[in-house]
Amino acid sequence: MAVHPSIVFADVTSDLTPEERRSLLGGKGASLAEMSGLLSLPVPPAFTITTEVCRRFLDGGWPDDLDDLLRESVWALEQRVGRRLGDSADPLLVSVRSGAPVSMPGMMDTVVNLGLNDETAAGLAASTDDRFALDTHRRFVQSYASVVLGARVDLGAIVGEALGRAGVDREADLAPDDLRGLLADLREAIVDDGSTPVPDDPYEQLRGAVAAVFESWRGERAVVYRRREGIPDELGTACSVQVMVFGNRDDRSGSGVAFTRDPTTGQDRRTGDFLLNAQGEDVVAGTHTTLPLDELAMHLPEAAEELERALDVLERHERDLCDVEFTIEQGRLHVLQVRRGKRTGAAALRIAVDLVANPEIALTRAEALARVTPEHLEQVLHARFADSGEAVELTRGLAASPGAAVGGVCLTAEAALDAADRGEPVILVRKETSPEDVAGMSVAEGVLTARGGLVSHAALVARGWGIPCVVGADELRIADDHFTVGDRVVHVGDIIAIDGSTGVVTLGEREVADDDVPPELEVVLGWADEAAAGHLTVRANADTAEDARAAREAGAVGIGLCRTEHMFLAPDRLPMVRAMILAETVAAEVEALERLAAVQREDFVGILEAMDGQTVTVRLLDPPLHEFLPDVEDLVVAEARGELDDEGHRLLEAARHWAESNPMIGTRGVRLAHVHPSLYRVQARALFEAVADRRAAGGDPQVEVMIPLTVSGPEFAEARRWVEEAAVEAALGEAPVVGTMIETPRAALVAGTLAPHADFFSIGSNDLTQMTFGFSRDDVEVRFLGDYVERGFLDHDPFDRLDDVAVGELIDLAVERGRAAVPGLKVGACGEHAGDPASIRRLLAAGVDYLSCSPARLPVARLAAAQAVLDAGAAPMVVPGETSRSPRQTGGADGRDPR
Amino acid sequence: MAVHPSIVFADVTSDLTPEERRSLLGGKGASLAEMSGLLSLPVPPAFTITTEVCRRFLDGGWPDDLDDLLRESVWALEQRVGRRLGDSADPLLVSVRSGAPVSMPGMMDTVVNLGLNDETAAGLAASTDDRFALDTHRRFVQSYASVVLGARVDLGAIVGEALGRAGVDREADLAPDDLRGLLADLREAIVDDGSTPVPDDPYEQLRGAVAAVFESWRGERAVVYRRREGIPDELGTACSVQVMVFGNRDDRSGSGVAFTRDPTTGQDRRTGDFLLNAQGEDVVAGTHTTLPLDELAMHLPEAAEELERALDVLERHERDLCDVEFTIEQGRLHVLQVRRGKRTGAAALRIAVDLVANPEIALTRAEALARVTPEHLEQVLHARFADSGEAVELTRGLAASPGAAVGGVCLTAEAALDAADRGEPVILVRKETSPEDVAGMSVAEGVLTARGGLVSHAALVARGWGIPCVVGADELRIADDHFTVGDRVVHVGDIIAIDGSTGVVTLGEREVADDDVPPELEVVLGWADEAAAGHLTVRANADTAEDARAAREAGAVGIGLCRTEHMFLAPDRLPMVRAMILAETVAAEVEALERLAAVQREDFVGILEAMDGQTVTVRLLDPPLHEFLPDVEDLVVAEARGELDDEGHRLLEAARHWAESNPMIGTRGVRLAHVHPSLYRVQARALFEAVADRRAAGGDPQVEVMIPLTVSGPEFAEARRWVEEAAVEAALGEAPVVGTMIETPRAALVAGTLAPHADFFSIGSNDLTQMTFGFSRDDVEVRFLGDYVERGFLDHDPFDRLDDVAVGELIDLAVERGRAAVPGLKVGACGEHAGDPASIRRLLAAGVDYLSCSPARLPVARLAAAQAVLDAGAAPMVVPGETSRSPRQTGGADGRDPR
Repeated sequence: MAVHPSIVFADVTSDLTPEERRSLLGGKGASLAEMSGLLSLPVPPAFTITTEVCRRFLDGGWPDDLDDLLRESVWALEQRVGRRLGDSADPLLVSVRSGAPVSMPGMMDTVVNLGLNDETAAGLAASTDDRFALDTHRRFVQSYASVVLGARVDLGAIVGEALGRAGVDREADLAPDDLRGLLADLREAIVDDGSTPVPDDPYEQLRGAVAAVFESWRGERAVVYRRREGIPDELGTACSVQVMVFGNRDDRSGSGVAFTRDPTTGQDRRTGDFLLNAQGEDVVAGTHTTLPLDELAMHLPEAAEELERALDVLERHERDLCDVEFTIEQGRLHVLQVRRGKRTGAAALRIAVDLVANPEIALTRAEALARVTPEHLEQVLHARFADSGEAVELTRGLAASPGAAVGGVCLTAEAALDAADRGEPVILVRKETSPEDVAGMSVAEGVLTARGGLVSHAALVARGWGIPCVVGADELRIADDHFTVGDRVVHVGDIIAIDGSTGVVTLGEREVADDDVPPELEVVLGWADEAAAGHLTVRANADTAEDARAAREAGAVGIGLCRTEHMFLAPDRLPMVRAMILAETVAAEVEALERLAAVQREDFVGILEAMDGQTVTVRLLDPPLHEFLPDVEDLVVAEARGELDDEGHRLLEAARHWAESNPMIGTRGVRLAHVHPSLYRVQARALFEAVADRRAAGGDPQVEVMIPLTVSGPEFAEARRWVEEAAVEAALGEAPVVGTMIETPRAALVAGTLAPHADFFSIGSNDLTQMTFGFSRDDVEVRFLGDYVERGFLDHDPFDRLDDVAVGELIDLAVERGRAAVPGLKVGACGEHAGDPASIRRLLAAGVDYLSCSPARLPVARLAAAQAVLDAGAAPMVVPGETSRSPRQTGGADGRDPR
Repeated sequence: MAVHPSIVFADVTSDLTPEERRSLLGGKGASLAEMSGLLSLPVPPAFTITTEVCRRFLDGGWPDDLDDLLRESVWALEQRVGRRLGDSADPLLVSVRSGAPVSMPGMMDTVVNLGLNDETAAGLAASTDDRFALDTHRRFVQSYASVVLGARVDLGAIVGEALGRAGVDREADLAPDDLRGLLADLREAIVDDGSTPVPDDPYEQLRGAVAAVFESWRGERAVVYRRREGIPDELGTACSVQVMVFGNRDDRSGSGVAFTRDPTTGQDRRTGDFLLNAQGEDVVAGTHTTLPLDELAMHLPEAAEELERALDVLERHERDLCDVEFTIEQGRLHVLQVRRGKRTGAAALRIAVDLVANPEIALTRAEALARVTPEHLEQVLHARFADSGEAVELTRGLAASPGAAVGGVCLTAEAALDAADRGEPVILVRKETSPEDVAGMSVAEGVLTARGGLVSHAALVARGWGIPCVVGADELRIADDHFTVGDRVVHVGDIIAIDGSTGVVTLGEREVADDDVPPELEVVLGWADEAAAGHLTVRANADTAEDARAAREAGAVGIGLCRTEHMFLAPDRLPMVRAMILAETVAAEVEALERLAAVQREDFVGILEAMDGQTVTVRLLDPPLHEFLPDVEDLVVAEARGELDDEGHRLLEAARHWAESNPMIGTRGVRLAHVHPSLYRVQARALFEAVADRRAAGGDPQVEVMIPLTVSGPEFAEARRWVEEAAVEAALGEAPVVGTMIETPRAALVAGTLAPHADFFSIGSNDLTQMTFGFSRDDVEVRFLGDYVERGFLDHDPFDRLDDVAVGELIDLAVERGRAAVPGLKVGACGEHAGDPASIRRLLAAGVDYLSCSPARLPVARLAAAQAVLDAGAAPMVVPGETSRSPRQTGGADGRDPR
């Protein structure tokens, strides 16, 4: 303990592992101990009261032995710096700060300049100057009154009055007499407020501050934060008592912030800011123009040299970009705090790759992966607005597909195509989109709709293609050549901008920063694939050859969801689908289906070619038939106006016939196939014929067939039979691979009877979430879901992030029961959750083998899969074809709500 | 075994309990053993091969020891009757019949007249007459060929040809030569068919017949029947070999069927039919005019006397109405079979009450309850058509509310009201009904709709009121003054009839048999209430004072579901609801709500008065708001025609705003209340003010408040807070009782976190079923659910009968987790399943305390609750206020599918 300025109750510091140190001393205390003890950096002497003491305090009030321990520690501190707390000649001043084992920035309390009273302030004045001593005293009283005494009076307002009276802007400009008057005013206000006065006895001050720091652990802010972040209540906070140093002491003093690398670009060069004769708060407040760090050497060359050495030591110790707060007092450097630095996405990637390559640091790939967040990837992958948002906000909708887009308003797909032909950027604005709009969407910079939720047609198509999109902007009223939002009219051709990451729509031109994707991205994602291989592989959802090629380029190892309805919705196919629906004889229906099959076969050939050698899982038709028909309302209006022809009348009858009260839980998926039994057979045959075509062309097609919306074993077995028959008809030559989706709660619960008929399961978590909550996503996201999350009824939007409790339990049960019936059963997940990091973690814990997400989510999913696998501590795969599984991490089986 | 004509392999009969006897000898064998052994009735001698032998046969083919056993048994039989099998002078003829431990009528095979060949037939002719012997031989060959040899040729057609050639109608009229030719033709056809000929050796015949009887256990018909009835495959069938007796031997012979009591009325008098000189099959075939049983004494007085004695013995033995088949051969009575007699509902009730009162029989009330089925109650409660269905079937729809109704077609509610004023019976025919139709429905004899499922507005209202109703008759095309079904046109005023129990709609007048409810009903239901008390009580669903009074009269012990939306839907309320929806300011919204609250308060007072002293559970508003608005399509048409006024435009905007893609899983229930937070507060206040009114009037109001569609603890806690605030505002004086419905799979899974906020749970099994399957009931029942059941994808319609597997498991989990968190938590069930006997059994097994069903279902629910409790063997209640619970009977936790 000899050279150890950080004193801990219980002589444990030296024996502790870094984790134990953090748990006992908190993040800040551990960092102080390491910097001063292990790294011998110039840190102001301090001691830390452990979290164990805090827990005893919270359980039973001020512990009996704490006074003795505090006095011993203060004595040791005094010995070290040669000043005494309460010494009227040369008083020791300290700060008292909280520091939990887990970072909770700004959530708990701090008292600075503790140790001042009228007597010690006079001593401080004698050894410095009058104004400095008075201002420091004023700061102490203000912080102590609000933090420790809980004064409710607005002390800031009293300071403001004093500034006003003196006619100055900053406290630093107040004359000693002004400060003296202000101090008196503050003390009077505190007593008038009903508080006890700030105690004069420095030890009493310290006692109060320590108690306040401990108490702040159960303050409302801290409790709410912990709940949101999932931090256990029983950790408690440590409390560090540190000698004050003053960057505002004189011109050989100063304060600053230094980064060991550039947090914006990731370049290997020091960056930062500093101010001479100033405190740390002045540097961050933005009230002064700071100086760039590389000028420090011009002003205080020794301190600059010492800082450079400290940064070097710290980066090698932390093995990461460090963000270092320092103060120079009378030429001498003090390191106050070190944290791993926040960084941009581009910097995160570059630093990760650089530190792995750096032989002195030799970061492992697993460590490097842990330092890159999904948000970092989002930043480098999507365009952002370069301006900081002065644009006029027009309205807000749901953020349906991230990215920034600017363009002229087009209200129809045709207009969008024309404008695109003229080379004009387009924002396509529609009430909602339908298959007819797809061509227009494909040329648009962005899409904005007045209706629909995050699974509406517009949202799904835009996310699939990575086009920025805002949906459900329900203030929009769309007319023929303009739209309105309240009183504001926006005409065709007017420039608007949409932010698909926030849902904000603005009027007028904005600048889009569309930086290139940094080259380190592919390096990092390659490491991710390595780490996750054999535990959790990542496929993509893709419905066309083009999407499949893009997905493969983006790193997908297969297609986990190829939606055949998107083939049906293509404008050239729709007439064939309608012919099938309108068919009045079985022969006519079969003829229409055969025409569809012929074009589907070509589609499949393209996809299988793009994914040659990789698995393509084709889901047979899923949506209700009415989605392929025109809107009943439009037809009814046309009929009322006498504008409906024969074909229109037949369409109206069909649309009415197929209209359902609740289509999402109506006649879709395998149910529709049971109503039209040739449907799946013909689709499957087209697929198997495509396989034959590819084989004839020397390719290596790998297909699986997936049946949607199953509720019972016999229902699925019958659908499987159709696919097997189609395989025979198409002379496939082998038994087809047929699996079922798990999308209804019943399917999850009867998984044990589905599994014997199934070659694999695929968890359709979107539908499973809808049915488990009884939440029609299109409806609830527009009306109340955001509000539910805000009010704490739900922890999060269960469509964004898998509901750990109920949906998670159903997935656990599906996997458990499926594998109990068929050991080793392959299970995938192909809902949108497959692209969300927290959900990926949960899916891995449930035992899922592979994910399938939209191509745009691939980078995030690949990273998140690797992080989840690494966190679960999964051993590398041993037996080929069998996954070694990490133990289940989360339960949910006890039905607990996360709150 | 001395006097025991029924010989069993293994000398066990005398030691057996009745259950063991039935299990070993099958129903028929046990009955023969009892009648001849225990009751000393004149039964033709027989022996029975046990089910144990059958099981060995099915496992490993013909058992090694079976031949010896068969020969021994035949020898014993021969000793007893003094005739020998195969004796050419006086041959013994036997029947070989199957008989399972559980009744499977007509499912398995029988061979009669076994023992005949050309030689023995000649002997039979010598002791009787030529024609009789030939015809008996012919019958044997025909039955043996089809049952044992499996001949596929149509032997009936060959008989038909012979009748044609002879120019007679009945086989009995064929001359001996004709019969001889027919016999030859039959034998030739059998051989031509590829079968082996009928063996001549009587013992070979017997061996073949026994094997065929055993084999028939795994015949397709039998397997399907067992699956449907849930009979285990491993039981096996017994096989009885019985000496033939001939009612067609001469004029002192005959056959008949006798009932110990009247199976139609239940009166204590013998009834039945008989025929002289005829076989049993002639009595039931309907080809002869039978004689009433009381004439038997005129023809064969000794046999009649003997029969009377046998009937007396049998009824006392069975302690029930017996259905007895007998044959008289040459003046001597033989009892062939006794069964408990099928009976009408009225008879079932009367017999149950009579047998309990009868000191000789002294049936217990529990036994009496077990003999009355829900179908018996349905029969006495609903009108039936008195004619047997010669009416012209027009179409079929879904049977939505049982009963028979006849009336003139009215196509609007106004027309129905006018017709009712003129005293004309009315069938209201609508595309679908809405709140505007309620007045018209209330005067109609029956309701028929073209659209909608079993939970559509029409179905719910009709069932609530007990009006016969058919919905979803989708062939109907309704015009202004007529409707069509295909080419057939039905005009306003034309008479149609609907059968709400079958869904059949017919054209023209029909006679309705509307018998009085027998007085025994209340006696039996009183016993049921006693038996179920303390285990499973039965409340009713009722929304008005009138319904509540009816429910109380029908025996409800409370209201378990009072739907407040039905108050909103009343025609005088709808404008207020719409005013609330259209309100443009908060003040206007609150004003409209207050007006509603005032009328609701009156409604509540009426209900609480009707149910004074009994619990009324009020569910706050549940359906989506758009249900209170006109149809968008109608408004759009009006708009297109330029016929929409200002109010109309505002309604259209509101209807569009509140329109949802999937309203069933959209913004309804507590979700809507979170969007309009004053809604529930105002409703609850109106309720509590009604409580105060009732108390002021000296009443004893007991209310509970129920929150629908909950998904999370905090969501429910907030709704509870509103109700608590309303209780304070209304000065209720105590904490309100507030529970939550369990309707979403998530609510069931997180029941442990809901329970601490809830005073009770109420399982809403309709919605829970919809969400667990992802089945929108309105859609799936019309499109495919019937087909799913028919094809075996599901065992039954899960809306009619609770899905034992998945929905059942979720209910189990909800109850378990709720009670784990809050021991003794009260749990009710208020879906339509609460009125279905099989579902009631399942709900009791899950631990439900009370049911709440529609008033029309009360008698059935009260009976079924008692039967479920008695079957579960629940001990009588001991601790007041605590229910003693029967052990869980069904699992489901293993996720098994019932098939």
